[in-house]
Amino acid sequence: MPQDRIRLASLRDKIVSADEAASHIKDGMIVGMSGFTRAGEAKAVPMALAAHAKQAHAKGEPLKITLITGASLGNDLDKQMAEAHLLSRRIPFQSDPALRKAINSGEVMFVDQHLSETVEHLRTHQLGPIDVAVIEAVGITASGGIVPTTSVGNSATFAILAEKVIIEINLTQPSELEGLHDIYIPTRRPFREPIPVVTPESRVGLPFIPVPPEKIAAIVITEKLDSASNVLPPDHETAAIASHLMEFLKHEVKIGRLTERLQPLQAGIGTIANAVMHGFIESPFHDLTMYSEVLQDSTFDLFDAGKLNFASGSSITLSKGKHDQVMPHITDYKSRLILRPQEISNHPEIIRRLGIIGINTALEFDIYGNVNSTHVGGTHMMNGIGGSGDFARNAYLSVFVTKSIAKGGALSSVVPMVSHVDHTEHDVDILVTEVGLADLRELAPRERARVVIDNCVHPTFRDEMEDYFDRATARGGHTPHIIEEALAWHVRARETGSMHAKAERKIA
Amino acid sequence: MPQDRIRLASLRDKIVSADEAASHIKDGMIVGMSGFTRAGEAKAVPMALAAHAKQAHAKGEPLKITLITGASLGNDLDKQMAEAHLLSRRIPFQSDPALRKAINSGEVMFVDQHLSETVEHLRTHQLGPIDVAVIEAVGITASGGIVPTTSVGNSATFAILAEKVIIEINLTQPSELEGLHDIYIPTRRPFREPIPVVTPESRVGLPFIPVPPEKIAAIVITEKLDSASNVLPPDHETAAIASHLMEFLKHEVKIGRLTERLQPLQAGIGTIANAVMHGFIESPFHDLTMYSEVLQDSTFDLFDAGKLNFASGSSITLSKGKHDQVMPHITDYKSRLILRPQEISNHPEIIRRLGIIGINTALEFDIYGNVNSTHVGGTHMMNGIGGSGDFARNAYLSVFVTKSIAKGGALSSVVPMVSHVDHTEHDVDILVTEVGLADLRELAPRERARVVIDNCVHPTFRDEMEDYFDRATARGGHTPHIIEEALAWHVRARETGSMHAKAERKIA
Repeated sequence: MPQDRIRLASLRDKIVSADEAASHIKDGMIVGMSGFTRAGEAKAVPMALAAHAKQAHAKGEPLKITLITGASLGNDLDKQMAEAHLLSRRIPFQSDPALRKAINSGEVMFVDQHLSETVEHLRTHQLGPIDVAVIEAVGITASGGIVPTTSVGNSATFAILAEKVIIEINLTQPSELEGLHDIYIPTRRPFREPIPVVTPESRVGLPFIPVPPEKIAAIVITEKLDSASNVLPPDHETAAIASHLMEFLKHEVKIGRLTERLQPLQAGIGTIANAVMHGFIESPFHDLTMYSEVLQDSTFDLFDAGKLNFASGSSITLSKGKHDQVMPHITDYKSRLILRPQEISNHPEIIRRLGIIGINTALEFDIYGNVNSTHVGGTHMMNGIGGSGDFARNAYLSVFVTKSIAKGGALSSVVPMVSHVDHTEHDVDILVTEVGLADLRELAPRERARVVIDNCVHPTFRDEMEDYFDRATARGGHTPHIIEEALAWHVRARETGSMHAKAERKIA
Repeated sequence: MPQDRIRLASLRDKIVSADEAASHIKDGMIVGMSGFTRAGEAKAVPMALAAHAKQAHAKGEPLKITLITGASLGNDLDKQMAEAHLLSRRIPFQSDPALRKAINSGEVMFVDQHLSETVEHLRTHQLGPIDVAVIEAVGITASGGIVPTTSVGNSATFAILAEKVIIEINLTQPSELEGLHDIYIPTRRPFREPIPVVTPESRVGLPFIPVPPEKIAAIVITEKLDSASNVLPPDHETAAIASHLMEFLKHEVKIGRLTERLQPLQAGIGTIANAVMHGFIESPFHDLTMYSEVLQDSTFDLFDAGKLNFASGSSITLSKGKHDQVMPHITDYKSRLILRPQEISNHPEIIRRLGIIGINTALEFDIYGNVNSTHVGGTHMMNGIGGSGDFARNAYLSVFVTKSIAKGGALSSVVPMVSHVDHTEHDVDILVTEVGLADLRELAPRERARVVIDNCVHPTFRDEMEDYFDRATARGGHTPHIIEEALAWHVRARETGSMHAKAERKIA
């Protein structure tokens, strides 16, 4: 019964249709919506709002908003909102092909932001104010507290700062999720106190988002499932990447730098990071913990394999099969899980304190260890930096993984100079491709190039890379480059579809 | 009397010559030395060691070390050690022309590191172990505690982790410096606690470096002064930069985002940042605080002007005139000053907590807000990233300043694409040149380019920049670039000495 999910009885008469709720949102507003890595997004109101935009635009009326979320949305919502031309500005992350197209064409202004930072900007009025927050919930407590579903993301700060709050109560989300969340908001400056999280297990906040009930303008009842994860199963290359990393970590244990419990693990979203986490199942490591953003299939596989003791994240994003297996038994996992606001899951303070091993995916990296996570060809946005910077900067070990080649071997993921930098050499410790692993710690750029070429570059690109590095080194410099040729691999890819050089293009 | 400076009497017979002390340091060792921004470095032992290297090399014997410091050294020590071919590896910062040459030629392997990170790497055995620490001190306490001089830098962790410690007691450093320092070392993982610094004034540690007296292998008495700061006085352009920033901050106060007390200030080392800090003297702001790394002349001018209440840093680096004025009266300033380990002055946890306004100098920046702090022409190391990344990433406001042109107008400090990235667009809020100020907050790349071109580019480069941006935008993309032309300004500078284009070089 929907009514049972609203324990504060006085709010029960706020239930309206999605269409009616969406009409609180007007042209020019700044709207904060729940949703992080396609989990726990509000589902009905954004859809109704996209329909409103189409109707308005057909009548020549304006309806465009700034949309801020936790991270990516599921259920094709970014697609529908982009195609309805509803979005003028989008912050801080997305992963939708239609929205990506609108961003790259210049229609939608996209602010690509470290995921821990957005609410700092809101709280200090550098961004905002939020007019309306739209939050998916399991239910509402007797005191009016909002219990989130499969993600926390930025929902707590959106709801606390917004003028009006719209709640979507999703009946397909198990009410047993209540108690999973830990909502902590840093105190206000100038007297902000340390964030008291000292282990992945630390519970320091409330199990709900505290909001004055009078701010809740509408409640919508929904029954749409979260989208299933689109992560692919491990393959030959991702298994090799996992294996290289396991060998490296075993060696670190052997020489006494780590124990077999390692340190709290973080893994970025996606196929490769998920595959790497699977690598721990058959490893000698045990009693592991995670302090991560998104908890994927691999987290639950590691629980079931008895390898993982505890996982802290900001969302749970599962494949269809894993969802059907886990969600009916979520109570069995609950004592080993916490979902936090992304400000806390990704907070530099905590990441540095805990000494995290962070594993993130690169689009490409260069021989000196600079990483491009976002821009295809240096110009076209893929998804966004997400939380990779939050983790890479402050991790005990910052690992980036990618397959060494793409497009059937036409493109190398290792290049002389990346076409866009998201993570500088200062923030990158370990690079892994299926070819091997490069340990860049405490190395100067020329030494880094040597280990990257020897260990990570695909054999079909190795001679060309050697040739570039040798000629660059002959010119001198701390970080040798032939500046007029440094981006040539990207130019060739754009012009010919392949990064391989024609002999006559080389500069003597 | 030198003896009076050694209150633990049993250590008094450890006094030896610099030459004798230096012979503790052997080929292949890893040595940690005090010194941060040319302040408080050990002076006699490095000089003796350089002489040892020359003697050894003349006899065909090897003598090379890995040298780790806080940051840059004064008294031409990096020059002398580089020219004696003593250094095989140098971490984490330097600013000496002779050493720079050896780094760029590939003789010295330089690891350019965030200043807050070096001791994390030492503590976790990813770097090290430190064989010998050489620390300048005001004196030694009755319990054997080492009282640093004008910098703390990494000295505390070097001394705590080193096999042997050599102390240089510098009689020219006033003994009244005792009580100025606050030595706090984060507790060990996995149970590291929050760092309890909650305001610039927080004192959370000891006034000396705690070391077992039996580790102290030698004590050397010296009387050499710190080098004077080489910061230039404000000029027309730096005054304009300061003025643009003051106007911006006044506006932030006016719209209610800040109060006239602002938030704790950080300023990078150097002429421009120092000039900007001078700009606060004639401003309406008051009751200011600093939470910075190096405290320069401007800090004391702001104290004397009644504008500054408190300053926390890791070192004090003054001009000759200011040194002679301040040091005899250091007791008058002591209650308003703290010197901390650079791990704490630059700690992400504290910077984020306090909400710092960070002002750092760029070598160049691009229209999208990426900053190059280190590499001339994309290849040749200048000084190093220093603490700029520690502050820029976590600041409430991250400001970068530079003059819009260099080399008499031949070079533009604003370029289509930086030749090396130290700070990505994600970490840069405000850019200032003498031309004006660009507020990049919450803007997408295309919008950032517009405000940078309109506000920061020198008029003699504006048309060429407009032209590039227009043609790049016609190609599309979230961050428009003409990839084959993106670094052309740097190529031209290398080939012709000027970034200005010949018409025929443009690509249609």
